[in-house]
Amino acid sequence: MESAIKELEEKGKAAKAASRKLAFLSTEIKNKALLNVSEALMGRRDDILAANRADYEVAEASGMSEAMLDRLMLSPSRLEAMSQDVKTVAALPDPVGEMIEMRTLPNGLQIGKKRVPLGVIGAVYESRPNVTIDISSLCLKSGNAVILRGGREAINSNNALAKVAQEACYQSGVPQGAIQLIESTERALVNHMLKMKGVIDLMIPRGGPGLIKLVSENAAMPVVAGGVGVCHTYVDKSADLSKAVAIAYNAKVQRPTVCNALDCLLVHSQIAQTYLPSIAKEWAKAEVEMHCDEQAMAILKPIPSLNLVPAADEDWGKEYLSLNAAIKVVDSLDEALEHIERYGSGHSEAIVAEDYSAAMSFLNQVDAACVYANASTRFTDGSQFGLGAEIGISTQKFHARGPMGLKELTSYKWVVFGTGQVRP
Amino acid sequence: MESAIKELEEKGKAAKAASRKLAFLSTEIKNKALLNVSEALMGRRDDILAANRADYEVAEASGMSEAMLDRLMLSPSRLEAMSQDVKTVAALPDPVGEMIEMRTLPNGLQIGKKRVPLGVIGAVYESRPNVTIDISSLCLKSGNAVILRGGREAINSNNALAKVAQEACYQSGVPQGAIQLIESTERALVNHMLKMKGVIDLMIPRGGPGLIKLVSENAAMPVVAGGVGVCHTYVDKSADLSKAVAIAYNAKVQRPTVCNALDCLLVHSQIAQTYLPSIAKEWAKAEVEMHCDEQAMAILKPIPSLNLVPAADEDWGKEYLSLNAAIKVVDSLDEALEHIERYGSGHSEAIVAEDYSAAMSFLNQVDAACVYANASTRFTDGSQFGLGAEIGISTQKFHARGPMGLKELTSYKWVVFGTGQVRP
Repeated sequence: MESAIKELEEKGKAAKAASRKLAFLSTEIKNKALLNVSEALMGRRDDILAANRADYEVAEASGMSEAMLDRLMLSPSRLEAMSQDVKTVAALPDPVGEMIEMRTLPNGLQIGKKRVPLGVIGAVYESRPNVTIDISSLCLKSGNAVILRGGREAINSNNALAKVAQEACYQSGVPQGAIQLIESTERALVNHMLKMKGVIDLMIPRGGPGLIKLVSENAAMPVVAGGVGVCHTYVDKSADLSKAVAIAYNAKVQRPTVCNALDCLLVHSQIAQTYLPSIAKEWAKAEVEMHCDEQAMAILKPIPSLNLVPAADEDWGKEYLSLNAAIKVVDSLDEALEHIERYGSGHSEAIVAEDYSAAMSFLNQVDAACVYANASTRFTDGSQFGLGAEIGISTQKFHARGPMGLKELTSYKWVVFGTGQVRP
Repeated sequence: MESAIKELEEKGKAAKAASRKLAFLSTEIKNKALLNVSEALMGRRDDILAANRADYEVAEASGMSEAMLDRLMLSPSRLEAMSQDVKTVAALPDPVGEMIEMRTLPNGLQIGKKRVPLGVIGAVYESRPNVTIDISSLCLKSGNAVILRGGREAINSNNALAKVAQEACYQSGVPQGAIQLIESTERALVNHMLKMKGVIDLMIPRGGPGLIKLVSENAAMPVVAGGVGVCHTYVDKSADLSKAVAIAYNAKVQRPTVCNALDCLLVHSQIAQTYLPSIAKEWAKAEVEMHCDEQAMAILKPIPSLNLVPAADEDWGKEYLSLNAAIKVVDSLDEALEHIERYGSGHSEAIVAEDYSAAMSFLNQVDAACVYANASTRFTDGSQFGLGAEIGISTQKFHARGPMGLKELTSYKWVVFGTGQVRP
């Protein structure tokens, strides 16, 4: 354990040293390195898949769930997608060096903010080995060094992927030490990492609620955590019902396992009689289990072949990550707003309404990272929002909120061009 | 103590409730409230000065230092300046509600970021009672509720000031609870405050290094701390010597007690013989004590009437906050950069140079909140930078760096205007 901590600290020092050079690395070299990583992922395909196979067999033998095994597994097509994603990052504009808010003060001082990297990013993640490449490429493009700590279950895959990325980067002129992977699987190392303030400038946890909580509560440095997404869609009495069916269907069914999927449908009582049967029939085709409050149950019960259960208290504010949805009938926009304030997690919330004032009130009053009028909450995503790539979705208000792209991995410094000015 | 904690928690709840309304308060009401505060400070002058007199007498009897007594003391002219500052905040543009980066995506979604308040700001500060009004007015204008915890030594002054501000605000339509002052002087209350994550969204410590450290290390919520300012001015061999004299003189002498004042002068060896005597003679007139390295001492020793001492190890990286300066002769720009990297605190750093490449290298390579070419570091200040008012100067990279104005007390939310879009 002591030697693992010593190794971690040495890796931290090396990352810090590399970060000073990375801050000035040309866009040309960074892009060349990313394209080389992309190619190397294909060229070294057999090594990577063999390493992943080894992880998979251990995990399978240990009785890992199907869903987790699926997250762990790399296939040739997944590897190709990973390689493609790195190319996408290479094609994005370099955030570093951009000058913003440049202006000339009355005394002639020219002043502006120049975008600079944060320094060293610490990433702690679980299961999905593609995060190794994903975070490494975003950190490199934004001029940050990175210390990666993947899950024990993916250790061989992560080692293989990090090695490919390191070699491809260092051959392209990226400073040695820019990408660090912690190979020891000692759990206590994460706790030590969280104390390395001054070395690690930002921690990014990616994984389940347990990991996010551990990192958020114990890190000495700033953390950007993608939090829980308890997402509501409120169908107002003024809603265009066909839009409302399409939006709620999409928000629940298009990819139910992710944080921006619908968890709870709120329906105005004046349209519940017509709207609820329409959406319920569509959801039933997709095998959605509906957790209904009393009023919704009374409306839907007569309809055959629906998968209905009475809602329990714990259904409100629950993130299902599966084909389940809570349904509640409300008597007003205000009741919907109160429900969302009480049970929402500040991620993504939507209203479907043709009434202008209702839509605007909702957008103004709901306190969430992303608020929608007449669209599916599934759009909360860096590439959907036009950020190119995504390091995560922040549900905090500090530094960055909502989908985080390259820019959110940077800070700025004030640059002042003078001609001899002194303060009077 | 238990009852003080209970009271603190109730004030927290009230502030949180007020913050939800404050987020939607019109600019008109906020400005009216600020102007009323400004007037009330003058109208209630006698009460405020009497309360301050009581604090002053206790502090004086307890043997408080002259400098601290001066910080504590309110005079009619200081009160008038405070009243004027509140008017200035009223005149600033309202940051809340600004839509930034608005655009239309290919699928027709209109998407942008809307600036919103952070929620509840916790402020812990020492001595200077004007901070009570200063922070209250900035929080109000940015739509945030505030919980104030001033120093024990200024408790009567702070109570009187907060009362005036509360009454003037609530009479103008500001929601009750927007401004909270903790009246108990129990030290343990600060520790309890630092645990109130979920209630307090951001902590701002204002005071000495001990207070800043306590808050930074123990707060469960984000902190923006104005840190230590160890500021260097490097005079390159290409410097215009008269500019270099004016800049170093201003940076040290114009107001030596603040964080952006010069602490260490670095001088290129090729011009040290001519430059050092010029600046030393000027500094001597202002009674600056010069802590010289060997080379500087050799150059300056023959000159009469200078206040010279040999520099000790602890002079490098020291924030003097007084008429003291360290002087070091360096043989190259690189040596200056290394010295600054090692000893600077990431606050404000300046180069004086006519050589274009030297100036640009310095601005690019120095990692500090504010970097200057050919100007005094004394300009690092919210109002000098055109931000209008200043809540503090951040030496961290996360969320905000350098002078922080109203905008830095806000977050944003993504607002999405759809017409029925679903994710394919």
